[in-house]
Amino acid sequence: MAEKSQKTLARLPRGFVDRGPDDIRSAEKMMAKIREVYELYGFEPADQPLIEYTDALGKFLPDQDRPNEGVFSFQDDDEQWLSLRYDLTAPMARYVAENYEKLAKPFRSYRSGWVFRNEKPGPGRFRQFMQFDADTVGTPGVAADAEMCMMMADVMEALGIPRGQYVIRVNNRKVLDGVLEAIGLGGDENAGRRLTVLRAIDKLDKFGPEGVALLLGAGRWDGGKEGEGDFTKGAGLDEGQIEPLLKLLTLDQSGTDIDESDDAFIHPFAAIASGAVELGPELASTLDPVFLSADRTRLADYSNGIARLSRLAPVFAESPTFMEGIRELVNIEKLLQAGGYVQSYNVDDRGHSIQRLSPSQDFDRVMIDPSVVRGLEYYTGPVFEAELLAEIPNEDGQIVRFGSVGGGGRYDGLVSRFRGEPVPATGFSIGVSRLLTALKNLGKLDTSGEIGPVVVLVMDRDTESLGKYQRMVSDLRQAGIRAEMYLGGSGMKPQMKYADRRGAPCVVIQGGDERAKGEVQIKDMVVGAELAANIAGHDAYKEARPGQVTVPETELVSTVRRILDAQAADRNSRP
Amino acid sequence: MAEKSQKTLARLPRGFVDRGPDDIRSAEKMMAKIREVYELYGFEPADQPLIEYTDALGKFLPDQDRPNEGVFSFQDDDEQWLSLRYDLTAPMARYVAENYEKLAKPFRSYRSGWVFRNEKPGPGRFRQFMQFDADTVGTPGVAADAEMCMMMADVMEALGIPRGQYVIRVNNRKVLDGVLEAIGLGGDENAGRRLTVLRAIDKLDKFGPEGVALLLGAGRWDGGKEGEGDFTKGAGLDEGQIEPLLKLLTLDQSGTDIDESDDAFIHPFAAIASGAVELGPELASTLDPVFLSADRTRLADYSNGIARLSRLAPVFAESPTFMEGIRELVNIEKLLQAGGYVQSYNVDDRGHSIQRLSPSQDFDRVMIDPSVVRGLEYYTGPVFEAELLAEIPNEDGQIVRFGSVGGGGRYDGLVSRFRGEPVPATGFSIGVSRLLTALKNLGKLDTSGEIGPVVVLVMDRDTESLGKYQRMVSDLRQAGIRAEMYLGGSGMKPQMKYADRRGAPCVVIQGGDERAKGEVQIKDMVVGAELAANIAGHDAYKEARPGQVTVPETELVSTVRRILDAQAADRNSRP
Repeated sequence: MAEKSQKTLARLPRGFVDRGPDDIRSAEKMMAKIREVYELYGFEPADQPLIEYTDALGKFLPDQDRPNEGVFSFQDDDEQWLSLRYDLTAPMARYVAENYEKLAKPFRSYRSGWVFRNEKPGPGRFRQFMQFDADTVGTPGVAADAEMCMMMADVMEALGIPRGQYVIRVNNRKVLDGVLEAIGLGGDENAGRRLTVLRAIDKLDKFGPEGVALLLGAGRWDGGKEGEGDFTKGAGLDEGQIEPLLKLLTLDQSGTDIDESDDAFIHPFAAIASGAVELGPELASTLDPVFLSADRTRLADYSNGIARLSRLAPVFAESPTFMEGIRELVNIEKLLQAGGYVQSYNVDDRGHSIQRLSPSQDFDRVMIDPSVVRGLEYYTGPVFEAELLAEIPNEDGQIVRFGSVGGGGRYDGLVSRFRGEPVPATGFSIGVSRLLTALKNLGKLDTSGEIGPVVVLVMDRDTESLGKYQRMVSDLRQAGIRAEMYLGGSGMKPQMKYADRRGAPCVVIQGGDERAKGEVQIKDMVVGAELAANIAGHDAYKEARPGQVTVPETELVSTVRRILDAQAADRNSRP
Repeated sequence: MAEKSQKTLARLPRGFVDRGPDDIRSAEKMMAKIREVYELYGFEPADQPLIEYTDALGKFLPDQDRPNEGVFSFQDDDEQWLSLRYDLTAPMARYVAENYEKLAKPFRSYRSGWVFRNEKPGPGRFRQFMQFDADTVGTPGVAADAEMCMMMADVMEALGIPRGQYVIRVNNRKVLDGVLEAIGLGGDENAGRRLTVLRAIDKLDKFGPEGVALLLGAGRWDGGKEGEGDFTKGAGLDEGQIEPLLKLLTLDQSGTDIDESDDAFIHPFAAIASGAVELGPELASTLDPVFLSADRTRLADYSNGIARLSRLAPVFAESPTFMEGIRELVNIEKLLQAGGYVQSYNVDDRGHSIQRLSPSQDFDRVMIDPSVVRGLEYYTGPVFEAELLAEIPNEDGQIVRFGSVGGGGRYDGLVSRFRGEPVPATGFSIGVSRLLTALKNLGKLDTSGEIGPVVVLVMDRDTESLGKYQRMVSDLRQAGIRAEMYLGGSGMKPQMKYADRRGAPCVVIQGGDERAKGEVQIKDMVVGAELAANIAGHDAYKEARPGQVTVPETELVSTVRRILDAQAADRNSRP
């Protein structure tokens, strides 16, 4: 036995957690439902190891300002660097690249597993967490992106989140890239700066437009005021560059407030959309066809999100990337409409109607939203985010929107970087632990556990008696009844306490007297507890011996079964 | 796009594997069955993270002759060492020690997950593999060990392995420790040497008794002959120490060959067991009560394994540890008999019968076997091993017994080392990948996969057509039918090839003509393939249009459903 002074300290490293039965069972039920949706969509399970060569994973994490850049790494015997995966996408890309010729393409796969971030842990921020991803590799068309959005919406509903309480937000990195091009941040030489801008924008939720403006400019003090907390260096953009970026992010959510005094945003489209100008052939010829109906006599039947983006079109029209981004979003929205995931918008005869700009978007399952960015560097096209709209208490007790429970996007460069040929791909990742927390807060978690085991108490500890108890347990198990022999210390009280803590439906008791008569006592723990609650004194309780029967040994299994059936019927009859 | 010269090499580190859909689905089905047995026995799910403090894991691995001692380790920001877990037992011990007061005791839990060994990979030897464990903490009695053995036997049968094709072998470290004490290797000062002996003995399967003798003595050359290959230094025991150890390991398996010329093994027990001497009161008084029936008039009704061990009793009788070990094994066997896991042995009226020494042990589910050691250092009492007896080809094509698929034992020191008080514990671990390989070789693996998705082909790629295909897919999914729109490149041939590779039950086709008429073609891929096989020429095949129907769009879902039902009925009617 170890001396007190030599004891090893039993402690969990920071940012890691142990999980108990309820969490595990709930997570498994939740993941089974997600899996069902992924399978319904024709995806197949796949699995990669947790360790990869560091260079194969690449460096795409946001906030890589810590020494080992957010990843747990170690050297192999041959001096090559290995890392624990930080997501499921990078290993998937390695796998597809390595086995490209063998795979049916497009390659549609799903995978779940632990991923690791060597980050500073905090509340709700872990260094090991579980993701559940689906990816389609080998298709450049946005139909694959649209499908991801629909699938995520279906996942939300499969988990019991009602329509209107979640939304899948969609944007396109190309839109943002186009704006960056237009403000002079295009080209390889500005790649680093674009990344800084990206990360600044991704902080919109956290710091608001003013904070983001600081991060886009000279920089921001953590405390909010100069000299307070640490200083984060900004992207160094000037006013003229920052303004259009903020416009993009803060486009009014309702889309109805076309401000005619704002020169930058008065353009033919806005005027038509507001109903101020009628769409004739001449005006139509000045608009990109993507904004028009097939016969070019009216505006296309698209949503609020597209409308909001289109208002920036004249500002950034010189950027082909921007227009390509919008075109892709329009096509995504059309597929979503066909699938029934966004509503068709009412357009009047003349092809322009303010109604179109104020749809009842509460019930759109998927929504175009120009403020979505996603922190990961590797996205190249459409990006999406699953957001829970329900307002639930956060860690500080404030009532807030729960926010993102997953996201993804197109990452055309991730497989390509192994193969030197274009391999377009898109995917989605669900944060399992975060979603589980959300469902718990929403009361949507299936927490119905296993029924506890029938506990055969140990009244005597001689070999013969133990053999008899063992036989009873074996007989119960043979009959498919969850059962165990009490294996702890002696005494009636700790045994009953144990049975109670384990949620035993009943206990089996055989002392010397019963053994001599070939009988067993079976105590119904549920009826027992209920009767006990209704009986005043301890003596009266003892006398009533609530819920206890004595039967011949041969009737042990059938009696236990009858008690279990009665309890089940009772549970099912409750509201 | 990356230049050819800048490409990252897509490669998996040595000793790690990717898993495909069949492997994953089979593993999940297998693990669900194991889980069911663990639950039936009253165990609850638990889960620890994959990373622990290195000192909390301890150093208990066999073959720690590599620099980093078999474990993947790295330093945390605060310079503390972290490691990837090398098994599920050490983290479980940390968890129990850390939360001891909160837990219902005995604490019965099960857990599955990846573990890591930083070892030289080889065929069938991976650096990441999955284990599936069950443990009982807080009970010193061997009833918990006996339960582990019964549970493992039930797991084997739940997986479809028939009785007689597997066996759970049980031994006790105390028996071995007793022998080591008796040959002068007791005491703390010999701990290192005992470990070397342990590991030598664990190589019995690999090197045979001669090889083990060399490892117990001066040492052994890897090549088998002096100077061939590397030299492994031995434990340095002398002849007189090596001989009794070898006796223990090589006790004849049948137990019937009591060699009366072997002085060391002629003792009262052996003589009675062989029937040569009758058991009278005088003789009975010389035997430890554990070997006698309750009334002390005959030998106890135990098995072959105990009988084999008992033959060593007079040699090591001076070691209390040895006798305690045997006593525990006898008690385990009695519980196993009560549970129906070993047979009761026929003893004649006089209390001695050769029959008892040659039971039909083929059908014993659990068996005492003195040669079981288990490589891990932390075992302190009973140890067990689940062995598949079926003879199946190994990696080199030789027909051999498949061997161990899991094992475990009592580890009374593992939780204690955190707490400075005795916390007895026992557990069992299944090697998931190894068991999966075994079941595959035995043809016992459930490989029935998901039915492939219905593939809606993409004949036209304009937005309107894509919208229509999307609507069809959404309708099928709404009806619970696994379906997808083809997302790859154009052309009929690659689409049909894709549908074929994905195992699509049928494909949906709508070209311009059908669209104009509001119809869809549905091609039954199973009937189609069967018809095609029976039709000689390609033209005839084309003309017959096997298994293809054209229906109104509104009948898409019902028609697909009818085809799926017909295919299912067909599958079920096959032998």
